[in-house]
Amino acid sequence: MKNKKLVMIPGPTPTIRSINDQMGRETVAFGDPEFVKDYKELIIDLKEMFKVDGECFVVAGTGTMAMEMAISNVTKRGDNVLIVSNGFFGDRFIDLCERKGLNVDVLSAPWGEVVSPETIESKLKEKNYAAMTVTHVDTSTGACAPIEEIGKIIKNYPDTIYIVDGVAATAGEREYVDDMGIDILFTASQKAFGVAPGLALLWAGQKALSRRKSLGTIPEFYIDFEKWIPIMNDPSKYFATPAVNMVWALKESVRVINEEGIEARYDRHIRVSKAIQSALESLGFKILAKEGNRGTTLSNVLYPEGINDAEFRKIMAEEGAMVAGGLAAYAGKLFRLGHMGNIDDHTVYSVIAVIERTLIKLGYKYEKGIGLKTLLENM
Amino acid sequence: MKNKKLVMIPGPTPTIRSINDQMGRETVAFGDPEFVKDYKELIIDLKEMFKVDGECFVVAGTGTMAMEMAISNVTKRGDNVLIVSNGFFGDRFIDLCERKGLNVDVLSAPWGEVVSPETIESKLKEKNYAAMTVTHVDTSTGACAPIEEIGKIIKNYPDTIYIVDGVAATAGEREYVDDMGIDILFTASQKAFGVAPGLALLWAGQKALSRRKSLGTIPEFYIDFEKWIPIMNDPSKYFATPAVNMVWALKESVRVINEEGIEARYDRHIRVSKAIQSALESLGFKILAKEGNRGTTLSNVLYPEGINDAEFRKIMAEEGAMVAGGLAAYAGKLFRLGHMGNIDDHTVYSVIAVIERTLIKLGYKYEKGIGLKTLLENM
Amino acid sequence: MKNKKLVMIPGPTPTIRSINDQMGRETVAFGDPEFVKDYKELIIDLKEMFKVDGECFVVAGTGTMAMEMAISNVTKRGDNVLIVSNGFFGDRFIDLCERKGLNVDVLSAPWGEVVSPETIESKLKEKNYAAMTVTHVDTSTGACAPIEEIGKIIKNYPDTIYIVDGVAATAGEREYVDDMGIDILFTASQKAFGVAPGLALLWAGQKALSRRKSLGTIPEFYIDFEKWIPIMNDPSKYFATPAVNMVWALKESVRVINEEGIEARYDRHIRVSKAIQSALESLGFKILAKEGNRGTTLSNVLYPEGINDAEFRKIMAEEGAMVAGGLAAYAGKLFRLGHMGNIDDHTVYSVIAVIERTLIKLGYKYEKGIGLKTLLENM
Amino acid sequence: MKNKKLVMIPGPTPTIRSINDQMGRETVAFGDPEFVKDYKELIIDLKEMFKVDGECFVVAGTGTMAMEMAISNVTKRGDNVLIVSNGFFGDRFIDLCERKGLNVDVLSAPWGEVVSPETIESKLKEKNYAAMTVTHVDTSTGACAPIEEIGKIIKNYPDTIYIVDGVAATAGEREYVDDMGIDILFTASQKAFGVAPGLALLWAGQKALSRRKSLGTIPEFYIDFEKWIPIMNDPSKYFATPAVNMVWALKESVRVINEEGIEARYDRHIRVSKAIQSALESLGFKILAKEGNRGTTLSNVLYPEGINDAEFRKIMAEEGAMVAGGLAAYAGKLFRLGHMGNIDDHTVYSVIAVIERTLIKLGYKYEKGIGLKTLLENM
Repeated sequence: MKNKKLVMIPGPTPTIRSINDQMGRETVAFGDPEFVKDYKELIIDLKEMFKVDGECFVVAGTGTMAMEMAISNVTKRGDNVLIVSNGFFGDRFIDLCERKGLNVDVLSAPWGEVVSPETIESKLKEKNYAAMTVTHVDTSTGACAPIEEIGKIIKNYPDTIYIVDGVAATAGEREYVDDMGIDILFTASQKAFGVAPGLALLWAGQKALSRRKSLGTIPEFYIDFEKWIPIMNDPSKYFATPAVNMVWALKESVRVINEEGIEARYDRHIRVSKAIQSALESLGFKILAKEGNRGTTLSNVLYPEGINDAEFRKIMAEEGAMVAGGLAAYAGKLFRLGHMGNIDDHTVYSVIAVIERTLIKLGYKYEKGIGLKTLLENM
Repeated sequence: MKNKKLVMIPGPTPTIRSINDQMGRETVAFGDPEFVKDYKELIIDLKEMFKVDGECFVVAGTGTMAMEMAISNVTKRGDNVLIVSNGFFGDRFIDLCERKGLNVDVLSAPWGEVVSPETIESKLKEKNYAAMTVTHVDTSTGACAPIEEIGKIIKNYPDTIYIVDGVAATAGEREYVDDMGIDILFTASQKAFGVAPGLALLWAGQKALSRRKSLGTIPEFYIDFEKWIPIMNDPSKYFATPAVNMVWALKESVRVINEEGIEARYDRHIRVSKAIQSALESLGFKILAKEGNRGTTLSNVLYPEGINDAEFRKIMAEEGAMVAGGLAAYAGKLFRLGHMGNIDDHTVYSVIAVIERTLIKLGYKYEKGIGLKTLLENM
Repeated sequence: MKNKKLVMIPGPTPTIRSINDQMGRETVAFGDPEFVKDYKELIIDLKEMFKVDGECFVVAGTGTMAMEMAISNVTKRGDNVLIVSNGFFGDRFIDLCERKGLNVDVLSAPWGEVVSPETIESKLKEKNYAAMTVTHVDTSTGACAPIEEIGKIIKNYPDTIYIVDGVAATAGEREYVDDMGIDILFTASQKAFGVAPGLALLWAGQKALSRRKSLGTIPEFYIDFEKWIPIMNDPSKYFATPAVNMVWALKESVRVINEEGIEARYDRHIRVSKAIQSALESLGFKILAKEGNRGTTLSNVLYPEGINDAEFRKIMAEEGAMVAGGLAAYAGKLFRLGHMGNIDDHTVYSVIAVIERTLIKLGYKYEKGIGLKTLLENM
Repeated sequence: MKNKKLVMIPGPTPTIRSINDQMGRETVAFGDPEFVKDYKELIIDLKEMFKVDGECFVVAGTGTMAMEMAISNVTKRGDNVLIVSNGFFGDRFIDLCERKGLNVDVLSAPWGEVVSPETIESKLKEKNYAAMTVTHVDTSTGACAPIEEIGKIIKNYPDTIYIVDGVAATAGEREYVDDMGIDILFTASQKAFGVAPGLALLWAGQKALSRRKSLGTIPEFYIDFEKWIPIMNDPSKYFATPAVNMVWALKESVRVINEEGIEARYDRHIRVSKAIQSALESLGFKILAKEGNRGTTLSNVLYPEGINDAEFRKIMAEEGAMVAGGLAAYAGKLFRLGHMGNIDDHTVYSVIAVIERTLIKLGYKYEKGIGLKTLLENM
């Protein structure tokens, strides 16, 4: 029988049955007291989980929308913005900010590396930035920015709102909003939360909320913090209809995370990613992100010589694992492997086995079984 | 045993099992060829169903977001916009447009009535409007605007983009984009499509698309037509992760609609709404919307003397039907009853029975059974 | 859109979503500690709910199998058995008993009536019966036997095992095993428990268990109490693989019953059946079972003159309700309407509305709406 | 997060989502024309799949019940029966047959071996047997009887009904009823069909059906072929309520099997079982069944010295795989590993990985990774 196709791209990630079941419920009225209670508890849980004394927004949309939400609520035309880009998703802020009339400075790292805190600090000294964006783990490279260290620096720049794009990180990589000096953190449901795509999540600390207040009316409507704050504090109120089933699914995801323990979850992501990366290296692959900068949520995996990207991914899919291709200059040179969210050990062994079977089918010469053995020794 | 709580608010509407089941599937990679095929077919089906030679956008978000999407893609700061408002949701365009720097003129009807095509035409002659918005059925009143007649007028105003807010109408009230001279039509998944909330749907004809092109870069990012057009034509491409399960659910909803036949569906909405409204009147309620202007998707139902809104809706919920309260000046004076989407006759009889039982519990004097009898005679 | 087809036959009955969801779970090992716990709790709950100091058996099979299980465990070739038959299902015991070499005496009532306790007592005096069977509610007639009164008589006949066939009664009609002097009660999952078909349920009191012991080895294997007693007391043991998902579903059904309260459930069945029967009579139908003998779980409904059975049931199905035809001499003369289990008021109103719509389509002359009105006045 | 607990006992086997979904549907009337069609098609498909010119019975119950059904329909008190027993499940026929008054002869093999066709033939010459039972794969040993060879012998004994117990074989091990000279084959839903437990399946060829006819009335009621033949040929008729949801699930299972191809499925079972058994041997385990006699559906796996059964299975469960313990004399000495039905390669790699992790946790000395490597080389 055909192998189940494992969803090993960097999002959506595999969805477990209890989360699927919440999606599959009959929808209720958004004002139904039981739903209002569920939604309210979710927001409280999410604030607590990521330790923010501020607001948490859960809104129908995507991570892309959350980027815009972050920028729109803390900047105005003519402001300076510093974009710290470690890849494709860092760069996305450029277009976004420019179309909003912001003056954009960009600090870029070569793909696989990250801009150092020192470089950031030098730049911050040059100019007054209304906001700075850092992509925690850039999906295009798998490199992980030192957001905590950067957070320590930013504390000296009270005018700069520190925006962390946690799309490919949040709920997999350690992130505590207030403790790390983050002002805005955002992500989407289909990443390390393990829910279907369709929800944007955003946490805003007091500094960000004050900035929003100071801006008065902003041009954006649907993603305006001010519209949502009353709702997030009392979901019986109306601004736009909440995505009822997705809210339930996210709530179940939070329950699953709490069952595991958020710290245990972070540790698991470290353990699993190291084991996977070791296994991949034992097979002759290279990890794009430099050691020390590697994210725990996904790996960008450079092919050894002789492996054709299209063939590799085609056979992978046939053997039962969907992985993503490389972006931009790395198209054809690497594949992107998600290993975040609700994936258990079975999934991890299965995917390394799929990779080995694929290599064998491609006639690749290597020591058969070494990937699985290395995985076993490192899990 | 407790009665099932029927979702009789004007959205979300009852979701049927086959649609729930699509929501409950394991999520797949958005680039999975089978999903790409599903998404593409959905877009094609939606264009055909609403007869547009242009584009259809299905994007994670809400009807509120779709309003902003409509405005943002066809206007620029300083443009004149005419807002035809028949209620609360018509008025919402004012804030939205003003914050985008548009000059807003508003034509308002008393609640329950609609602005006449003549009044609109007079206004259009006065000034050059970049766009005009009309709410097809305003959920706050249940009044239905004569969008087809207005469409005939607007043809003489080639600079004005005709935006129809179909949130509480589309898939329940007759709407054919090109044939009716509509330039932009939008709605959300949880209304007459009978899907959970979480998707915005928007159709744009050639005139709207040309306008978008002429604007160059716009400040909005996530809701920019230009970002989505390539995706909607080839969903294997990426801009923002599609809400996979919601797309499947909407696709199933389209299948269900086609099974019924879209014309048969429109006729059913007429038949059912008339029967419900007759039944309500036989019970001593009055319908806010004037005859001739009544929408078929919901009714705003004025209480007879002596009925307390809070008590009425509380007992209704206990007896098994959630209805919504009145908005603004009508809070406490009426309840809002949705009767759109995938509701069958059983649901209709059940809800009238719930209303009768509620009246009896409230000690209301009337001829018992007259509501059900009137319903039976008019269905 | 097509109306949902309500399952208004006397079993299967409508299954609610929370019960369906238990059916839809991934199956686990029958020795999985969590399943063992679930199964054990179910048996305990079922003993308590029906008040038996003895055993409860929940076994993959049907009500038909449960009949055989009852007989096989308390009789041996050559024994006398008294069959109290009020219809088709009472008569079924004849073939069953005769093929096992039992001497069968039958007391029969005209269809719609029940054999009186006095008649039973006279018969019991004549001969020593090893067992006596009484069908609580015979599905072929809807007549309800006075099982409690009969139970008082049987106490004077210590050699006679009192077997009550509760297939169309249990969990809808009041039944307390020990208190009513019942020795064996049985039913199936798809009746008033509201679960899919596939499970036989049987309760045996101490007298029945002693009889079984005294018989030594019996010819039957799968339905032998002795094989199952160890399992029902410790479901981690093995005799035959339990129907895991059906056990979960039945457990959920028991939870639903306890949520309502078993006494409240019995009262509801009385209230609903009376209202339905009044409504049907107001429409010109007659109820086969005599007043005083009417079951609360189903009605056998005689057509008024001029109504054709096949046409009636065909239109009923189209309008959204499946009902069953009459059996034996009553084929074509009546339809059988189930109203047991997890049916809420919505279902009841819906089905009477379906009946009225069907009558109207058949051109039947009557006061439109009278059925619904009568229902409303009597619920 | 906790690993999903894989169901690797020899039944129930893992149930896939599409089969679970059939279980989770709302139940319909058993006379609903769509269900009748589904049931009928299922019976036709099952006859074709196992190539029988006779009848196929799908009845609520279990494999244990199917054993009794097989015996009861082809023997009468006083008949001779030959039981060919290769383990615990072979022996079960002894009690079953003796309680029915049959004269039982037993041919037994040491556990792990099978009775040879020659031995069987010698025995058949001695006496006139009304029936002979052979357990295809005995779950207690994993040994596989040469049912095809035995079928060739039995053709010379026209008075002997050849009953094959396929419980742990059917739909995994090659079985063609008529071609192999089998008269009765039976199994249960939760084995290689991959459905939840709750259905017995039985195929009877013409010889078995004639025998049944010749017996006249038999003492058994629920499992009497004669009661079911009319139903299996026209499921709109009634004998006992079919287990609607389980029938749907089995039908989906048949669809899944046909999608794979029954021959491809048999080949897969061979390939996977060989790979698993090689992997286990490379880890130091021994397979109880002798090579040449090994079933492809499960393995009975003898522990290497120093491994404690209870500890091993406890850690296995924690790591994410339920396996079964040894029976009778082998309790504590081996574990039983199911590898039949709808298990894909991911499951196979996962379970070998679980075994390796368990061995490591137990401090067992061995070459880490050798099990996975051997698996990879042999799949």
